[in-house]
Amino acid sequence: MAEKVLIYSRFPKSQMVRIGEHFDLLDAAGKPPLQTFSADQLKDVRALITAGGQVLKADVMDMMPALGAIICYGTGYDGVDFKAAAERKIVVGNSPGANAASVADLALTLMLAVTRRLLPADQYLREGGWSGAKPSPLMSPQPGNPGRRVGVYGMGEIGRKIASRVAAFECDVAYHSRSKHDVPYRYEPSLEALVEWCDVLMIAVRAGGDTNRIIDAAMLKKLGANGVVVNISRGSVIDQAALTAALTDKTIAGAGLDVFEKEPHAPDALTALPNVVLTPHIGGHTLDSHMAMQDCVIANLDAFYAGKGLPYAVVV
Amino acid sequence: MAEKVLIYSRFPKSQMVRIGEHFDLLDAAGKPPLQTFSADQLKDVRALITAGGQVLKADVMDMMPALGAIICYGTGYDGVDFKAAAERKIVVGNSPGANAASVADLALTLMLAVTRRLLPADQYLREGGWSGAKPSPLMSPQPGNPGRRVGVYGMGEIGRKIASRVAAFECDVAYHSRSKHDVPYRYEPSLEALVEWCDVLMIAVRAGGDTNRIIDAAMLKKLGANGVVVNISRGSVIDQAALTAALTDKTIAGAGLDVFEKEPHAPDALTALPNVVLTPHIGGHTLDSHMAMQDCVIANLDAFYAGKGLPYAVVV
Repeated sequence: MAEKVLIYSRFPKSQMVRIGEHFDLLDAAGKPPLQTFSADQLKDVRALITAGGQVLKADVMDMMPALGAIICYGTGYDGVDFKAAAERKIVVGNSPGANAASVADLALTLMLAVTRRLLPADQYLREGGWSGAKPSPLMSPQPGNPGRRVGVYGMGEIGRKIASRVAAFECDVAYHSRSKHDVPYRYEPSLEALVEWCDVLMIAVRAGGDTNRIIDAAMLKKLGANGVVVNISRGSVIDQAALTAALTDKTIAGAGLDVFEKEPHAPDALTALPNVVLTPHIGGHTLDSHMAMQDCVIANLDAFYAGKGLPYAVVV
Repeated sequence: MAEKVLIYSRFPKSQMVRIGEHFDLLDAAGKPPLQTFSADQLKDVRALITAGGQVLKADVMDMMPALGAIICYGTGYDGVDFKAAAERKIVVGNSPGANAASVADLALTLMLAVTRRLLPADQYLREGGWSGAKPSPLMSPQPGNPGRRVGVYGMGEIGRKIASRVAAFECDVAYHSRSKHDVPYRYEPSLEALVEWCDVLMIAVRAGGDTNRIIDAAMLKKLGANGVVVNISRGSVIDQAALTAALTDKTIAGAGLDVFEKEPHAPDALTALPNVVLTPHIGGHTLDSHMAMQDCVIANLDAFYAGKGLPYAVVV
């Protein structure tokens, strides 16, 4: 008989089809599990699948007294309370690197779209501005990529893939992360120095207490009037109110954002801006990325139920 | 005294400022020169600046009996009647490669935006679809870049820069052009074979009689239901009506177009589609690209007036 697995976060059903061929899935769809299932149904649930960014604390863990594994669908695991998990001898797994290309590709898509003003350009054409030769300040020529200073914050799998893509556009690439990596890009020992230097800041750092709102008003001021912020990591890394203010008063030039402080919500003050490109957390949202993430989830669950260590374990 | 130069096409004034510091400019702004200037004013004009795609035939050349040089602002020169020019001993120059990075960058921007459905994603978020958890068929996951088959049609400066950028996205790159080049990409000896093989067709071929509407209904059928066309070359290369039909009936998946058959007009049937990204011929429209194109124009004009051969001459 297939083992029970609780789906804790809200996932599209299509993303759980393959996993459902291996396990007996109980779909809580983002609600507290006891709201959907009885204590009796939950008492022998030994593993759950969650979106790494969603808050998952002791209260939820304690709804499943047999819980032994928390499997994050995706790279992130910032929503998981690791202390509470450790106290309950619950192991945590993720899908490292599985979505790295897809997320890096979206970072480049956002950088290019913002710096080339793609959305205003498409709108200018569709609304007849071009054929009517209407003046459009948004269509004035902007700096191009060759020689553009692009700073990558975070040098994990995603950061590396962002850097190699950016380099192909003849940009000048530097990075900052906690430690220096063996990569062909210049290392900046502080985030401040990276931000001071670069025109485009690509945020690919792992979310956590040490990076919470680290991109604040002062950092945005350092980035400067030609500066563009691209964030495909987590909304928590940026002080969203400060970013919105900086975009509104032109302290910086633009932003490409796939992640937000309170998903699935982006504030009206942000969605009203013309100098931003906004996507609904679709960084890892390609067919191949989902397939690779599902492979990791299935491998983690198979190993767990076989009494083995997780092949993709998170060690913090 | 500065030499007279006629500006034949309609250019934004900002693009002519530097050139105007070297020459005495007569701006016809896209109209027949005799409409704006008297025959007397035109009789000693020895050089003109044109946008390469604009039709420039014997009738216009004969308005300036002293004309000796046609200088194209940009890479293209497909609008110039070379036979008529040769008969009048008029030399033709262009700005080769000056906008290659900028145009290639836009090609990638369009490819990424179409394949990641960037515009629908931004709209879905801005219109509250995400926060309201509204179903959206357009937001279903699509194939990602790693392993994607990208065909580059044309292997000049722009085609090369497109190919190197595409390769950085872990795509599989092949190309077709009249002859095989010394490049690290697979050569397809026919356009048909390239189109049959690829999922994304990047059109970077030089416009001319031999490429006129070469991408027709049959080619688009070969490209197939997952196929995407990106055109940053000239609108004449594609049968625009056939493309619009193929996009409407889903013969192909999408298109990113910077160029159109009758610029600055794009047909309503095209601008109404959700699976296209359309830009108003802004491929070479970056500050550095304009600077480089102006450098070529000035160098060509300086050489011509000094009685020397053009440093950036077009030889057909």
